[in-house]
Amino acid sequence: MDLRIWAIVAGAIGLGFVGFLMRTILRESEGTEKMREISQAIRQGAMAFLRREFKTLGIFTVVLVIVLALLIPPKPWVGIAYLIGTLTSALAGFLGMNIATKANVRTANAAIGSWARALKIAFSSGAVMGFSVVGIGLLGLTAISLVFEDPHIWLGFAFGASAVALFLRVGGGIFTKSADVGADLVGKVEKGIPEDDPRNPAVIADQVGDNVGDIAGMGSDLYESYVSALAAAMVLGVIVFPIKGAILPLLLGAVGIGASIIGALLVRPGEFKGSFNQQVRKAHAVMNRGVYVSNGVMVVAGYFLITRFIGGEGLGLFLALVIGLLCGFGIGKVTEYFTSEHKPVFNIAKASKSGPAITIIEGLSTGMMSTVAPVIMIAAATVGAFFFAGLLGIAIAAVGMLINLGMLLAMDCYGPIADNAAGIAEMSGLGKEVRERAEALDAVGNTTAALGKGFAISSAALASLAWLAVYFEVAHISIASITNVNVIAGLLIGTMMTFLFSSLTMKGVSAGAFDVVNEVRRQFREIKGLMEGTAKPDYVSCVNIATSRALKAMLLPGILVIVVPLIIGFTLGVEAVAGLLAGALISGLVMAIMMANAGGAWDNAKKHIEAGFLGGKGSEAHKAAVIGDTVGDPLKDTAGPSLNILIKLIGKIAVIFAPLFLLFA
Amino acid sequence: MDLRIWAIVAGAIGLGFVGFLMRTILRESEGTEKMREISQAIRQGAMAFLRREFKTLGIFTVVLVIVLALLIPPKPWVGIAYLIGTLTSALAGFLGMNIATKANVRTANAAIGSWARALKIAFSSGAVMGFSVVGIGLLGLTAISLVFEDPHIWLGFAFGASAVALFLRVGGGIFTKSADVGADLVGKVEKGIPEDDPRNPAVIADQVGDNVGDIAGMGSDLYESYVSALAAAMVLGVIVFPIKGAILPLLLGAVGIGASIIGALLVRPGEFKGSFNQQVRKAHAVMNRGVYVSNGVMVVAGYFLITRFIGGEGLGLFLALVIGLLCGFGIGKVTEYFTSEHKPVFNIAKASKSGPAITIIEGLSTGMMSTVAPVIMIAAATVGAFFFAGLLGIAIAAVGMLINLGMLLAMDCYGPIADNAAGIAEMSGLGKEVRERAEALDAVGNTTAALGKGFAISSAALASLAWLAVYFEVAHISIASITNVNVIAGLLIGTMMTFLFSSLTMKGVSAGAFDVVNEVRRQFREIKGLMEGTAKPDYVSCVNIATSRALKAMLLPGILVIVVPLIIGFTLGVEAVAGLLAGALISGLVMAIMMANAGGAWDNAKKHIEAGFLGGKGSEAHKAAVIGDTVGDPLKDTAGPSLNILIKLIGKIAVIFAPLFLLFA
Repeated sequence: MDLRIWAIVAGAIGLGFVGFLMRTILRESEGTEKMREISQAIRQGAMAFLRREFKTLGIFTVVLVIVLALLIPPKPWVGIAYLIGTLTSALAGFLGMNIATKANVRTANAAIGSWARALKIAFSSGAVMGFSVVGIGLLGLTAISLVFEDPHIWLGFAFGASAVALFLRVGGGIFTKSADVGADLVGKVEKGIPEDDPRNPAVIADQVGDNVGDIAGMGSDLYESYVSALAAAMVLGVIVFPIKGAILPLLLGAVGIGASIIGALLVRPGEFKGSFNQQVRKAHAVMNRGVYVSNGVMVVAGYFLITRFIGGEGLGLFLALVIGLLCGFGIGKVTEYFTSEHKPVFNIAKASKSGPAITIIEGLSTGMMSTVAPVIMIAAATVGAFFFAGLLGIAIAAVGMLINLGMLLAMDCYGPIADNAAGIAEMSGLGKEVRERAEALDAVGNTTAALGKGFAISSAALASLAWLAVYFEVAHISIASITNVNVIAGLLIGTMMTFLFSSLTMKGVSAGAFDVVNEVRRQFREIKGLMEGTAKPDYVSCVNIATSRALKAMLLPGILVIVVPLIIGFTLGVEAVAGLLAGALISGLVMAIMMANAGGAWDNAKKHIEAGFLGGKGSEAHKAAVIGDTVGDPLKDTAGPSLNILIKLIGKIAVIFAPLFLLFA
Repeated sequence: MDLRIWAIVAGAIGLGFVGFLMRTILRESEGTEKMREISQAIRQGAMAFLRREFKTLGIFTVVLVIVLALLIPPKPWVGIAYLIGTLTSALAGFLGMNIATKANVRTANAAIGSWARALKIAFSSGAVMGFSVVGIGLLGLTAISLVFEDPHIWLGFAFGASAVALFLRVGGGIFTKSADVGADLVGKVEKGIPEDDPRNPAVIADQVGDNVGDIAGMGSDLYESYVSALAAAMVLGVIVFPIKGAILPLLLGAVGIGASIIGALLVRPGEFKGSFNQQVRKAHAVMNRGVYVSNGVMVVAGYFLITRFIGGEGLGLFLALVIGLLCGFGIGKVTEYFTSEHKPVFNIAKASKSGPAITIIEGLSTGMMSTVAPVIMIAAATVGAFFFAGLLGIAIAAVGMLINLGMLLAMDCYGPIADNAAGIAEMSGLGKEVRERAEALDAVGNTTAALGKGFAISSAALASLAWLAVYFEVAHISIASITNVNVIAGLLIGTMMTFLFSSLTMKGVSAGAFDVVNEVRRQFREIKGLMEGTAKPDYVSCVNIATSRALKAMLLPGILVIVVPLIIGFTLGVEAVAGLLAGALISGLVMAIMMANAGGAWDNAKKHIEAGFLGGKGSEAHKAAVIGDTVGDPLKDTAGPSLNILIKLIGKIAVIFAPLFLLFA
């Protein structure tokens, strides 16, 4: 019997677990009329965004399916696999976001009575995203590999996932920060009303942004990394170990789902009362336990699986797997050091006493400094994995980093759900104690979200390195030397792409925020009684403006990431494309870490001051810190995460179109 | 007779021109007692800084000379050549800065009577730096090549220049912005006194910074690029054209000095009266004429020289030379577009109406966008030069970019001298008309300074690419493929070095500014009558504090840039070092362009508002623009230019120590 049946079983169990979690979440009460109403508005906004995204994505997909089906051998199957990849990715994103928009209000309501129940609901909702991603991803890839033996078709499936990630991560990222920055600039700065005040017309758009950018965007991004890492390992695997090499990654995926379910089930917060900081630490500890256990289970189970299935030769692969796991874990620790209550954040808070300029300089240099350890770890992981198991080792290291994605993504998506819950608690005027409880959950969420960003970019980099190896295979490249000027030109242009892509996404945010600001100002001017709370704002128009802006702003970066590798491939040749991929990958990795950590550090420096240090809320230092935080917003939530997409998508394009480059060479 | 005699003659003519310029400058009057006093204080501060820099540099040099003399073959001559390189570079920096500290006050005084004379003095003083650099550089390198036939010794000479550049560019960059930001934060922001107000205790340190950072730093940086490009072309040249190949670059240098003198002599401003903007445009046009003519002369003379000396085969080299010239020119135009009165600057000014955060975001994304065209030009120049003349072509392109350095550096150094003159005019209370005239000269200086930065980084990148080619030769590398994980690790760490280096230099500035702020506050608190103008501040203590900070802050980056390539070379091997160089070169290039242009754009967006647009001085938009400008300061004047040093020095270390890597491999 084909052992891949176990991957099917594990995928099905993962989806069964999703069903179970959904049922427990939906059983919870949605609270008061007011809460339901707010939640409804967020939900409608998020779904409206998704509908418009998917409509444009649909056109894009049809065009690309036709191109692939007509041009890329084996015709038309790469095109078909691409389509399936797109549909499954969209499905996972939809499932996860759908439940998130239902869980937020339930988390807020549960926070009235119970800290533990609120935490549990938010985490479970994150787990729905996590296990939808791994369940659907593993099922889809296994099914494709059962039907088609040609590895090019497996790669086509992974390529399909990347288009959805482009739309949801880049588009969602621009949406979320346009709304957030726009809401804050008028609400907090001009009108002096608190964050999440229901009188602010952009407040719902801001909450929608958490769902579309941080949940659906994050989910689709990691779905893509997960499927890519597995597919790359399969393609490189069959070369080294015929047949078995293509099956092993799927079995590892199956074990990973099991390990993650065990970890997720261990997230059982007991009832807890304590100070704000104690609540934060406790919640963190509860979730960390799940991560540690699932990692431990994975290592043990992975050892037996690999050595039994492959034999003694498999030991190198096991070590590569562990290297990937450890690398992800280590980068998480570094991220935590730079973005939560430690010296770098305190230094930024201190710098804010000298005004906004020094705050920005200190934050930028902190972000840059934070790239050192992760880059060394990734370099060491690459060299180490290669030493133990060759190019396949790099792909297996990427699999190792992503293997517990079910559990890790649950933690990542927990953050924005808690954030939403805190927002709903604020908007629906629940008491101070409830709000504080919700905010403690949200504060943990900030750290897990920062960890999630570091993890997303590191895994994207490692998965892309594996795809670089795949590219060498499909483009028949044994050498792409930097003694070759075309490779240097590729490296130059790849690095420049990182800067261009970041520039475009940041400009998208500032243009979007500008429009949102104008709309919010208009409503405050034209709607009588809005400021007094006697009239209701038009939430929908803000959502629509941010949506239109996001779709418009992602057009050019989306086109560039597809067109540039094609131009380089057809003019400077396949080696130059290898340089392009390496340049984009490496600079994108370093830049994205810098942006994520600078943004996270600014955010928490502001929170540190708000907790009463250095003059507290309303002081000059606080004002400077707020400016730092606002600068950090598009860096950490738009430009940085968008670079994950750049480095992954550019690699996909190169791999898929390599046969054409060779034809024209 | 050896044709290199012409290089000696041209070098001597260059230095004779320096002597002539110095005499004309020193003939001018220093103005009133008060002006002389201020100028004296700046001069003493600058010399005190230089003395302390050179003392530390002395220890550093002795250690390195011993290491090189004992370890690097041919022993001890590489060490001796290194020492000579260091001494000549220090001499050029000293000459240029010395005259600058005498020309500033004479420029201010001349501005009382004559716009044209003031412009002429400032430009002539810049030309002293320009022709000291090319004259001493060409003489030194020619002499070394006449005495020693072993190319390794020529490379040692170039390496010597880079140590001086490290100290003056990085140390000077940290000094200048510590003083500038420190002076502004207390003076302008807290005390509300104007820029360059003599009551501000840090005002002299600020002026000193212009001299040590922007003049001595820029001069030593470009001395290094000039000598490196020539040496690389000689080393690669002898491989292709025995004997002649080593002589050609020196002859091109000789022709370049001639072309530059012609250009410089054409900078003859006629007397001119007009609005502020008309004065700016006129001054720009006068200097541009010199650049166009010297470029034109160079192209014609270069054609005859190359085709006569090398023969028909030399045509490819000529085309590479022209490519280098054009590339430098094109990058200058792009820099001008992004940093002077054009759409990008207007957009930043407009963004400042939405507050400081959006100003920062817009500036960062503008800086990122501005990297696109220069990177494409450098990639095209590299591919083109290689196409016409192989690896030697890349070195010749670098020579082409730097060949008119005498003229170009005169323009670059004109800026900070005009800036100083405007400061002296302000401090010594010369009338409004004089100040406006001096400020118009300063405004042109801002543009030429921005052009200078773009030019410095582009030429550093092209010269470093040529050194990468030299590295392949000396390390006997024919392939350094990105299919090799060690090369990937090198690329990763090289890219990370760019971020680490930037982080450290920026942190140096914020720490330095912090100390200066405290000292200035202390003086305002403790010195009675300071604010009223009845007591004098202690200027010297601010200079000393900034000096100590600068020397301390450059220690770690200086050590890293030397140690990291050695570690990589001894552990991961020569190919990994090639990756390291390429990674640092490419990411450093892109990052430095981003920083220089973002900083320049913020600066001019602020000036645009100060010219009366969008609410003018004192408006909310202006406050936001000032914050943008302050953030830009360390980016454009410290971190960005320091990256030139990183990419050049890391390449030198690799080339010089390559024999040891091979020994241990």
